[in-house]
This record gives sequence, C-alpha cells and structure tokens, in this order.
Amino acid sequence: MKTGKFPEPKENATQAWNTFVPRATNLGGLLVIVLTLTYLVSWSIPSTFTTAVNDSYPPSVHLENYCASIPPISIAEYHQRQTALATVLRTLNGSAYIAEPGASAAFYGNVSQANWRVSERPLLLIITPSGRIEETCGAKISVLTPKFETTRAKRLPIPSEVQYIEWPEDANPYELAATALSDTTGTVFVDSSIRKFISDGLQSALPNVTILSAPEEIIQLRERKSSAELDILKCANEATLLAIRAVHKKLYIGIRESEARSMMAHALSDVGLRNGGCLTLFGENAALPHGSGADRALGRSDFALFDCTASLHGYYSDVTRTVALPDSKIAAEHRHIWNLVHSAQTTALRVARQGILTRKVDEAARSFLAAEGYASYFTHRLGHGIGLEVHEGPYLRGGSNTIIKRGHTFSDEPGIYIEGKIGVRLEDCFFIDDEGVPILLTEGVGGRSASPWAP
Amino acid sequence: MKTGKFPEPKENATQAWNTFVPRATNLGGLLVIVLTLTYLVSWSIPSTFTTAVNDSYPPSVHLENYCASIPPISIAEYHQRQTALATVLRTLNGSAYIAEPGASAAFYGNVSQANWRVSERPLLLIITPSGRIEETCGAKISVLTPKFETTRAKRLPIPSEVQYIEWPEDANPYELAATALSDTTGTVFVDSSIRKFISDGLQSALPNVTILSAPEEIIQLRERKSSAELDILKCANEATLLAIRAVHKKLYIGIRESEARSMMAHALSDVGLRNGGCLTLFGENAALPHGSGADRALGRSDFALFDCTASLHGYYSDVTRTVALPDSKIAAEHRHIWNLVHSAQTTALRVARQGILTRKVDEAARSFLAAEGYASYFTHRLGHGIGLEVHEGPYLRGGSNTIIKRGHTFSDEPGIYIEGKIGVRLEDCFFIDDEGVPILLTEGVGGRSASPWAP
Repeated sequence: MKTGKFPEPKENATQAWNTFVPRATNLGGLLVIVLTLTYLVSWSIPSTFTTAVNDSYPPSVHLENYCASIPPISIAEYHQRQTALATVLRTLNGSAYIAEPGASAAFYGNVSQANWRVSERPLLLIITPSGRIEETCGAKISVLTPKFETTRAKRLPIPSEVQYIEWPEDANPYELAATALSDTTGTVFVDSSIRKFISDGLQSALPNVTILSAPEEIIQLRERKSSAELDILKCANEATLLAIRAVHKKLYIGIRESEARSMMAHALSDVGLRNGGCLTLFGENAALPHGSGADRALGRSDFALFDCTASLHGYYSDVTRTVALPDSKIAAEHRHIWNLVHSAQTTALRVARQGILTRKVDEAARSFLAAEGYASYFTHRLGHGIGLEVHEGPYLRGGSNTIIKRGHTFSDEPGIYIEGKIGVRLEDCFFIDDEGVPILLTEGVGGRSASPWAP
Repeated sequence: MKTGKFPEPKENATQAWNTFVPRATNLGGLLVIVLTLTYLVSWSIPSTFTTAVNDSYPPSVHLENYCASIPPISIAEYHQRQTALATVLRTLNGSAYIAEPGASAAFYGNVSQANWRVSERPLLLIITPSGRIEETCGAKISVLTPKFETTRAKRLPIPSEVQYIEWPEDANPYELAATALSDTTGTVFVDSSIRKFISDGLQSALPNVTILSAPEEIIQLRERKSSAELDILKCANEATLLAIRAVHKKLYIGIRESEARSMMAHALSDVGLRNGGCLTLFGENAALPHGSGADRALGRSDFALFDCTASLHGYYSDVTRTVALPDSKIAAEHRHIWNLVHSAQTTALRVARQGILTRKVDEAARSFLAAEGYASYFTHRLGHGIGLEVHEGPYLRGGSNTIIKRGHTFSDEPGIYIEGKIGVRLEDCFFIDDEGVPILLTEGVGGRSASPWAP
C-alpha cells in the first residue's frame, strides 16, 4: 500500500488526538473524524517519492528467511573485478595494488576483517597485472601471510588461484611482498586505509617505487555497484527496516535505551542479518547524533531514534527511524521538526541523479532546512556511500565534487539536533539506476517513513 | 605453596594412575602411593623459576573484587607522559605528535578506541611542545574533532586542558589540524598505526612539513612501563590466570570448544576484567596457533589450549595454558611435548634481562627446542611486548635487535605445533624489574603452570 507524499496516517492522527483530547474520551465518533482527516491529508500533496503508510508491510513475510534467495557475489564477478583492476593498473602504469584485510580486500579477494583480523603481523592481498600489454590483461593474486599462519591463510575463501608468500617471523615481510611484483619501479597503489607502518615497510623494501593511495580510477571500481551488489544491498536494507518496524510495535513508555537497543540487535539477527546494531537514543539524547552514553528511559513526550546497520554477504544496511508510540504525546513543535526532516529527505531525492555533483544534493536539503530557520541544527553531511562499508565514498557533503554516476549508492539522512531538547534523523539509502535516477534501497518494503507512528 | 622445577604434582600423578588402573579400583592404598610419589617428585629437581603446584591458589580470594584496589593511571602520570613527549619532540625538532584513537592516544591522552571508534571522519590527538627551548618544556594538547561531534568529543576523559579544533563537514579537516601547530616546517611525527589517508591529508595540508612515523625515542616512552602500569598489568594477568584455573575445574570430556570458550569469557568478566576472551582449541585443532574455525569436542586423549586476554584500566593480560583433565588419558609423547615447551619457557626466562638483545631470548628458547628435535614445530616468535595493546613492541623474535631495558614487558610463549596431531603453548608475561631481571606478571598467584593438570 503506497500513498502520497507527507501523508498524515492513522497513527499520526491518533497521536494528535492524544495530545488534545483526554484519553478516556475514546469515542467512535472521533475515530471517524481521525480517519477522514487522515484520508484527506494523505491525498492533499502531490507525490514524487512514495512512502509507506503501512508499518506491517509486507503483510505476511517470513522474516527469518527474508533474504534466503539472495546469493552472495559469484566467483565470476570476483574475476571481473580483478580483471578490471588489472586493466586500470596497466593504464596507470601501476605494478601492483595492495590492501590489508578490509572492504577493498573483500571486494577483490573476499578477504574481510571478519575472516582475518588485522594485527601487527601484515597479511596483504597483492594484485598485479599479468599478460603482455597488447594482450587481454589478467590479474595475478598473491597473499603475503605470516608463515606460521599459512594453513589458516590458505583457508581464506579467496575465489581465485592464489600465490601464497610466507614470511617467517624473523624475516622482513615487506621484502618478501616485493617478490610478488614483476616490476620494482613505477608505482604501487595501496588501499588508503592501510596503516602507515605497512606503507613505510613497503617503501623501504621497494626504494625505487612510489607508494601512493589508490586514485579515483581505482576507487570507483568499488564505489559503483553491480546489479548483484544492489540485490544484496536492497535485501539488507529491507530486512533492517522490517526489523525496526517489528521492534517499534514492542516499545513501551518507560523502556530503557539499552533494552530497546538489545531488542533491535536481536530483531536484526532474527531477520538473518549479521553484525546488527542500532544507535538507540531517546528524547534529548538524540540531539547528539552519535549518542551520549546515558541510558535514558522513554518518556511520553519523547521521540525514539534508531539508527540501524547490519550486513548481508558482507554488504551493509543503514536505516534511521525517529518514532513515537501510539500513547506518546509529542509536542507540536517536535512533530513539525519531524516533518521538516522528512521534507528535507524528499528534497534531496528530487535533486540526486546522474551527472549532478555530490555537494549539490547536500546543498538542496540544507537550503530547504535553512529556509525554515534550521540551518544551524543540521550539523552533519547529508549522506555517504554504502556497500562493503557502512560509510564509504562518495559523500553527499559540502565541498565534495564527485559526479554522481549510475551504480552509486548513498544514504539520504538529514537531521535536526537541538542540544538538550530534541534530535530527529531519518535515513534511507538509495542507488542511481540505469536511467540515472535515485531508487530507494528500501522500496521493496514500502520505503520511507510516513510519520513518527509509521516507520 | 611453591616447589621445584618440572614437578609432577598430584593431579598429574592422578592422571598417570587413571591411565593404568581401572577407575573402579579407587582404593585408599593407591592414594597413599600417589601422594608419596608426588611428594618425592616435587622435591627431586632443583628450581630456578618457581611454578605453582596448587591450581586453587590463592586459597580464599574473592575473585569478583580481585583488582578492586588497583587504581587507573593518575592524572599526574598522564601529565608526566605528555611532558616527556614534548621534551623528546623538542630534542628531535618535531613540531607535533599526532595519533588517532588507539593505544598511543590512550597513553598520552586517555583516548582509546573504546571511547572513540575510529571512522572515516578523523578525530586526532595532537600534542605540541610549548614554552621556549630554554624553559622547561610543556605540552599543549589539541583534539581535532568533527564539529557535529564536538559535544561528545568534549566528554572524552582527557586528563588535561584541551584545545578543541572543530572541523565542519564541508571543510578540509587536515587544514584545520595544521592550525594547532605553531611551526609548519620541520617534522611532524605520527603514530605508525595511523591510516594512510590521514597522513596523506596531513601531508597535503602541511606541504613544508615532513610526516614521519614516530622514531624509537618516542616509541620507548610507551614501551617501558611505570610502576603504576606494572601494578595494573600484574593484576590483569593474575585475574586472567585465576579465571583459567576456575574454568579448568569445570571442564569435562565431551565439552565443545564453543562452550568452553563461552565459560572462559564469563569467567574473565566475573573476575572484573573487560574485553575478555580466549582462543579455545582442543586436540589437533591447537596445532594451528590461531585456531581452525571448527568446534571440536574434547576427547579423553586431548589437551585443551586456552590463550586468554582481558583488560583492566585499558591494559591487557595474555596467558596461555595447555591443560588436561583428571580423567584425561594423555599419550606419553604428548606429555613429553608439554614438558619441552615448559622447559623452553624456563630457558627464555633464564636469558631475558636488562642489556640483552631481544632476539637472543627467542634464540635461547628456539635452540633448546631445536636440540630436542622440534625446531620446525616452533613456528612463531617467542614473545611480544604487552600493555595498552595485547601485542606491542618490542618483540622477542629473530631479527629484532632491541636492547632489553628496565620496565620492558614481554610474553614468554613457546609452542610446539604438529599439524593434524597436537599443539601445545604455554604463555606467561614478565617485566624487567629495577635489578634488570625478569619477574612474572602472574607471580602473585603462583606463576607458571606446573603440569597439564595444574594450570
């Protein structure tokens, strides 16, 4: 069930009624008025982006199997990534690309920090172009591993033939890493999140090589998502939103942030996602976008903010909902703020499309809130890329001049934070489709929040 | 109760008895023989390093309060560290020292990754020398923080006056970081675990500065421990060992690795430590020093290996025990291997002292095992430093030429690993005292394992 923009659905109207009418006067006549008003409001504003009114959407989903039909990245796709990287390396005259376990190593070699914890002992994924320039460019995959860990390293689920380079504890690992390179001049590109002592070590072992962080040409190989990646991201985000909706129904006035946080973590696990967790902030605690450390009880006049993430096949969701309960009594000003944040989200989605600069999207949402007098309360960037990292490039922020392209993903998460008083944030992620327009990653379950009562 | 080297204590003798005598013949006479043998064996070998026979030592400790009397690092000590750093910076002509949240930022400013999770948005601790050269050198503490997180950043427990430098989302954080420096030429030293994109950003913002990983003069400020640090490290290691001993008594033949691991995590939490966990490996699974990923049940002929760490006031413990149960039936060859590893530990402790090169200690333990024919089965370095990181420099390994000094801490953890068959590791940490000799961090609870039955 999808309806118009900014609907004031049943729950919201119910809340308004709670604010002005004593609870005891629970008359059928009022319900009729409420439903009528709801209907009128929901059709009073034309729609560009659909939002769900129904917080139990889809009606009969088996949450525990929700993403069972979504496969992980195929071996063929890993090989395509490696070949694409090798081809770019050739173009840039790069002799290798090197990453520690993490998102980039996961992208090219399925080596995340979940299957190899980073330690003081380097384990490196090294990709070098193979084949002569005039031939089709292939990729050679090497892994530098602590020698005593070789057996475990060989169990890494790398979907390629791998040359293992073992470094004994009394050797210099970087000198051994250098043996993976056929060319020890020119440039070696490293993932920019590599630790400095690793790039220092590589530089010492390869004195004639320039060690550089990977440039834009390499970065965008991972930034722009394939259809298989988008399928995973969609399901992860849908399941996360379903989990939030399920927990929303179980909240009560007086519940502690810690308890609600724990319910959310279980719900995310129950829908089959991993590494799930939510920032869970009640009332004025939500004014600090990343939390306060206190453990507040939910009051009747409080919004509850849930900023949730979880992963499927290594890809992350990121969904934020600011909600109220049926028996909450939310001040009119706070409901106004909620609606402004919702409209800022809409504004951003109207602007975001292929060919636009990332900063322009941030600017649109920011200008809208500024015109409403809330410029100084929207204190963070509008959004971030999302994929194998919850936050990754490109960013929707002032000063960022990346051109938006097909396959880019972004969060759209404006917020208004008034310290000591209130914090509202709404977040849905979207991708740029083949037509160059934004599609919500949560669209399959109705997409954006319709009101504080309909997350 | 402390006795000789390589004692064969009661439990071990009991085990031997279990091996050869049917369990039903539980006669008082045998017990007398066993106790007599135990007594004789325990006095038959002279001692250099004491080892505990009694696995319930100390007899009546209240584990849940075990470290209650150990204070965290004092504010005065933080100030001493900062001043010492500033003085070294002056000597090296360094205009600043910069670290991300982590062990080094925790050391100088009490900013660990536990109180500030590292993200794509830099938060940096910046320490600059203040005062003129001829005056006593002071330290100025600045924190570069995302502007929208300033309130949270100001809640960081930094025991100093701090200048907060706020970077808005649309600004270049590194250009703002540069404003903390009074001198924008010369050298800026960074913690070597800083991510490359941070040092890249600093380099771009400070084109006339050389960005270098902190050298030895700075590194050893954190490597050599104060008496307050040693008190914390001792208690953390003692409590960890007490937790292992407590869980050892609850193990049974057939228990799964996952279950024992969970018991250990609870036990570490119960003794009041944080972030506690153990590699828990049974039988041939222990042949892979960092585990296999399987969930094996404990067999009657298996050793169980527990490699445990936990923290107290941010400082880590690291204790490994390879144990058997009273009703285990351990092959003579495996008991021999256990004894060899124990002797290798002893050998290292005999060599480690002030003025010796770190590699010499590794060499001593390694030569001992080589002489016994096990050279190729001791596959990793002998040890590592320990403090605010579980593994930190200096390392006891071949190729490492650090001179051991007072206040250095090390793990002493030889092992023998025969893939598909057995893994034995024993680990106790020690520090170099004011006389320049090694003292076990677990000495307060009897120190090293006496046998597989007396951890």
